[in-house]
Amino acid sequence: MFEEKSARTELSSIGEFGLINHISKSVKLTNATTVKGIGDDAAVISESGNETNTVVTTDMLVEGVHFDLSYVPLKHLGYKAVAVNVSDVCAMNAEAKQITVSVALSNRFSIEAVEELYSGILLACERYGVDLVGGDTTSSLSGLIISITAVGITNKADVVYRSGAREKNLICVTGDLGAAYMGLQILEREKTIFKDNPNVQPDLAGNDYILERQLKPEARIEVIKKLKEFGIKPTAMIDVSDGLASEILHICTQSNVGCELYEDKLPIDLMTNERAHEFKLDPTTCALNGGEDYELLFTIDIADFEKIKNYADVTVIGHITEVGKGMLLVTRSGTVHEITAQGWDALLKK
Amino acid sequence: MFEEKSARTELSSIGEFGLINHISKSVKLTNATTVKGIGDDAAVISESGNETNTVVTTDMLVEGVHFDLSYVPLKHLGYKAVAVNVSDVCAMNAEAKQITVSVALSNRFSIEAVEELYSGILLACERYGVDLVGGDTTSSLSGLIISITAVGITNKADVVYRSGAREKNLICVTGDLGAAYMGLQILEREKTIFKDNPNVQPDLAGNDYILERQLKPEARIEVIKKLKEFGIKPTAMIDVSDGLASEILHICTQSNVGCELYEDKLPIDLMTNERAHEFKLDPTTCALNGGEDYELLFTIDIADFEKIKNYADVTVIGHITEVGKGMLLVTRSGTVHEITAQGWDALLKK
Repeated sequence: MFEEKSARTELSSIGEFGLINHISKSVKLTNATTVKGIGDDAAVISESGNETNTVVTTDMLVEGVHFDLSYVPLKHLGYKAVAVNVSDVCAMNAEAKQITVSVALSNRFSIEAVEELYSGILLACERYGVDLVGGDTTSSLSGLIISITAVGITNKADVVYRSGAREKNLICVTGDLGAAYMGLQILEREKTIFKDNPNVQPDLAGNDYILERQLKPEARIEVIKKLKEFGIKPTAMIDVSDGLASEILHICTQSNVGCELYEDKLPIDLMTNERAHEFKLDPTTCALNGGEDYELLFTIDIADFEKIKNYADVTVIGHITEVGKGMLLVTRSGTVHEITAQGWDALLKK
Repeated sequence: MFEEKSARTELSSIGEFGLINHISKSVKLTNATTVKGIGDDAAVISESGNETNTVVTTDMLVEGVHFDLSYVPLKHLGYKAVAVNVSDVCAMNAEAKQITVSVALSNRFSIEAVEELYSGILLACERYGVDLVGGDTTSSLSGLIISITAVGITNKADVVYRSGAREKNLICVTGDLGAAYMGLQILEREKTIFKDNPNVQPDLAGNDYILERQLKPEARIEVIKKLKEFGIKPTAMIDVSDGLASEILHICTQSNVGCELYEDKLPIDLMTNERAHEFKLDPTTCALNGGEDYELLFTIDIADFEKIKNYADVTVIGHITEVGKGMLLVTRSGTVHEITAQGWDALLKK
């Protein structure tokens, strides 16, 4: 009681991934039903007598770390909190069916504010066909914390892990990249202007698409359904939450392969491109390291290319190589760069 | 953006249960696999082709609200955070198999502190045969927040809800009640003394049992197994987290029945009794409203009494009556009181 530990190593010295790796080393799995634990978009549970697998994923959002209520409407926040979990379930090639929502609130929040938050949560539940089945509501000493767990289901043969990519597989990504990050830059800029002069109204005009990508991202459940329709089972899959670079490195590391991405193939929306130039940012860097796109990054057998080539929502951005080749980006000018993850890390940020 | 809502109703005006009821009204269940949503110790998911049901429960613990790190060792906190979720799974007559753990930490916490926390989490995993399969680690602006979700499994026929109690059923409780609350009183007393004079060492001697009940409660998984051995399926069950009074009211309300509890039957440990008198508290009140006992409160068919009567870990404390009789406590002196819940409410506390 009241004791102090002598050794002290700062969390910022290892970051979030470092901490997860550190903890994971002590974790032992003892149940035969645990098919996949830590290390993918969701855990996978498989009961021998059952036809389906259950997948479970969880995310915690902390005010001041993951969101800023000075420009994020509570309804959007609720929607996004659900969408990012559904996105993780999609990344296992599964369908989210249930969520639990735990919320800690300081007394700054009124019942009306909580209603706003839950209206967004329930809107997302409706959109994604997910049932809100439980949770916890409690008080916090400061700010708002939201913790959501999503439970999904998939036929046993359909689960896709990060670890299944094989040499010569094509690397595909849905939608476009970097837009959510540019939306955040706009919101941060207007917040700064508003702080300096509260009489100036925020100028958000003409940025609808990138703002929506930041404030109200969507999980790509229709892509999962389309791939099934096309008869395609990806060999590996992950959702793009921390940025393309970070995610392709996860796939390559866990699949023990290398990759080659082509800069000129990266799908970047025109508005993202324009705003990036205004902000003197490189659009490719935004796509690689911006994060929060919640698109799906996946690899397919080259034989499946014919089935997918006319699907406008998917872009082939490169291919998997043997592990010795490294993880590379071929730029527009033809030079080759090693890909490094500079994605967002909540523990390094501080 | 930057807008203010005009109406404002304080959360403290309705409390946690009021808020949950309020939110629940807007929740629609759309998936056939969702057998039970909000309103029991865990949600129940049942896939038609499967032999087993999946149960899911979640709890969020917030520093300064649910625990005080000036006297709660991080290792014990980790253990307790797992145990309370496993206890909720037990209350569905199910076995917890997997958990996810999300943690938000301020930069006050070192890696060594996080290791302490996880050593308790993993110890509980080992004790309860549960696998840590995922989670999230992030930073917080102040303090420590732990959100755990437990996933359990049970044969479809074995699930027990709060709503199944029937007239003439016997009301049973495991272990003893009120000890965790008395443990908390001791810790709070020593904290106050320590604050006034940091040179005085805390005097915790002779209070091991009640301190352990507060700091390191256990989920009663062995009771669930014993009941199966005895061939008993409870008609209703709940775990005692907010206090016996609050829990029996949940069973009665959801089962649409009344009850009669007998004060002289309530299992109260000798040490709890002694310390209560020292603190000038009524031991019965501690048992009814103290909370955090994590014992199981359940009802059984009277025909099952013979099977259980020699099981020392279970005490029959009353019986279920018809709904019109109300929810009553018969005191030692023979007078009859209406039971009201005065259990702990994180939102009312503030």
